[in-house]
Amino acid sequence: MSSILSFKELLNLFEQYVSNHTLSKEPKLLYEPIHYILQIGGKRVRPVALLMGYQLFDKPAEDVLSLAMAIELFHNFSLIHDDMMDNSEMRRGQPSVHIKYGQNAGILSGDMALVEAYQYLCHSQHWRLPSLLSTFNDMAREVCEGQQMDIDFEEDLYIEEEDYLEMIRRKTAVLLGASFEMGAIAAGASEDECTALRHFGIYTGLAFQLMDDYLDSFGNTSLTGKKSGGDILQRKKNYLYIYTLKNSKGRDKDEFFYLYNKEGKSDEEIASICAMMQRTRAEEALLIRAREYDDKATHALPASLLSKAGYGPILDLRNMLATRTF
Amino acid sequence: MSSILSFKELLNLFEQYVSNHTLSKEPKLLYEPIHYILQIGGKRVRPVALLMGYQLFDKPAEDVLSLAMAIELFHNFSLIHDDMMDNSEMRRGQPSVHIKYGQNAGILSGDMALVEAYQYLCHSQHWRLPSLLSTFNDMAREVCEGQQMDIDFEEDLYIEEEDYLEMIRRKTAVLLGASFEMGAIAAGASEDECTALRHFGIYTGLAFQLMDDYLDSFGNTSLTGKKSGGDILQRKKNYLYIYTLKNSKGRDKDEFFYLYNKEGKSDEEIASICAMMQRTRAEEALLIRAREYDDKATHALPASLLSKAGYGPILDLRNMLATRTF
Repeated sequence: MSSILSFKELLNLFEQYVSNHTLSKEPKLLYEPIHYILQIGGKRVRPVALLMGYQLFDKPAEDVLSLAMAIELFHNFSLIHDDMMDNSEMRRGQPSVHIKYGQNAGILSGDMALVEAYQYLCHSQHWRLPSLLSTFNDMAREVCEGQQMDIDFEEDLYIEEEDYLEMIRRKTAVLLGASFEMGAIAAGASEDECTALRHFGIYTGLAFQLMDDYLDSFGNTSLTGKKSGGDILQRKKNYLYIYTLKNSKGRDKDEFFYLYNKEGKSDEEIASICAMMQRTRAEEALLIRAREYDDKATHALPASLLSKAGYGPILDLRNMLATRTF
Repeated sequence: MSSILSFKELLNLFEQYVSNHTLSKEPKLLYEPIHYILQIGGKRVRPVALLMGYQLFDKPAEDVLSLAMAIELFHNFSLIHDDMMDNSEMRRGQPSVHIKYGQNAGILSGDMALVEAYQYLCHSQHWRLPSLLSTFNDMAREVCEGQQMDIDFEEDLYIEEEDYLEMIRRKTAVLLGASFEMGAIAAGASEDECTALRHFGIYTGLAFQLMDDYLDSFGNTSLTGKKSGGDILQRKKNYLYIYTLKNSKGRDKDEFFYLYNKEGKSDEEIASICAMMQRTRAEEALLIRAREYDDKATHALPASLLSKAGYGPILDLRNMLATRTF
């Protein structure tokens, strides 16, 4: 049995791998944007989740670094293209790829990151490739569908909570689910175990995204690297918006609707929107919902997996995501 | 031994497959653009080439329709995104995807077409998946690199003929090469045979692209479905431009350079550009070059393959591409 690496150790292992595996250099404008977005970092939650899913079955994480890289490249592909579609000018406190390098570079380097992801997938153990590829493809399809739902919501006046949760499930949560699952598949886990890890990842991802919505309005700006109330400024129909709209009435509802969907907002207006959210207890409802998902995540795993040594780092990751303030 | 299908029969077989395999329907704005571009057709040269590469080894083309679909979807992914990057408003005589459905739909449905391509690839015979995937990935990388080179050329004042040929090799020819090669791989052909078919496809693709450059200036508009001189209007640095610039001098050169790179051109100015191209014998040089590639294509194949019954339809395809006037 190989030794179990902690979250931190897995992260270092992966960062080391990323810096040793530079992609091609030419044509410059094709590859440089991918280096740029990979290098400005992020939490590397998804690739580390894959490594954790693998070591849970007593295998050394080093074996599947190329699969972890595939997941990270896919994630970055989706960030590059989503930022273009959402007109987001900043990413992780830095200019987005299409702002720094232009629209065409945004489209094409995003495409290339996706192709690279498949290339790293292909470099992994061949005998489980069909199953890994199939899981990866299903995930990729759902992520695109989730992004389309998100775009469609921009035109919708009212969105049901369940539709919103289905959108974030596809857009965000299935990627974390696929990360854990692919780790398990590569380790040769049973089908039930692979499915359990997928569900664990999806519920954890849902909790994670809800916390993201929460932190956008109520988080600490200097730690998130995002402008506070970014969703509010961009009139993003996130959980807090949908809940507040549903749970307010009459003039309050009209005022909230008007203010939130108004183009350009003063700091006072943003503060007033946050106050309305608090009045309907939207953040409380969100935190309860996030906690529910967090519980569902734990219950998705059979006792035989919860008692394994490799579950320790997974628990650390889950706790970090559920209680983070950054 | 299965019966050999003609070009026409393979085309019908593939069209039948496309119409029986509709993709998902929801979210509508994600899938409808893919249906749209698939349905407005095109020559289906690449998927048919894959089927031909397979039946060359005495296997029934029906086996690999999903691989052919993967190739066609990849091709359509690249058309959707390239049209955005090139600001091309028309495709096959119809509005381009991003014009008809908008920029965001262009980005996302293109991404989805690429993911779908991998999904069809994955549905094919599993035991040769690693090799098929690796060939497909290498092709996809070169296509992205070729598109980047093409974009980079827009900023370059002078382009060498060999750089231009390398660009069209990556952007266009490797896809046809990979199509033939993947057919051969799926059929279990030897490595030498697979490589021979790849080279055959690449040389044929180079000849095909040169003919495309030729037809853009000297072809029959009503048959190509493109506006005559589209490259000239868009100041595309194609073979004819590069050759004419290299082979003219003094005032002629300056005038050609000025006229070609001028924004907006009258019909007289386009006619005058074509006349200059004829004066330097650029179209003659192009046709000779295309013929050379066509010869190289034939020589790439060993006698053992040239004498096979399945080579008949391949020869038909090659002749069609080399001598087409549409």
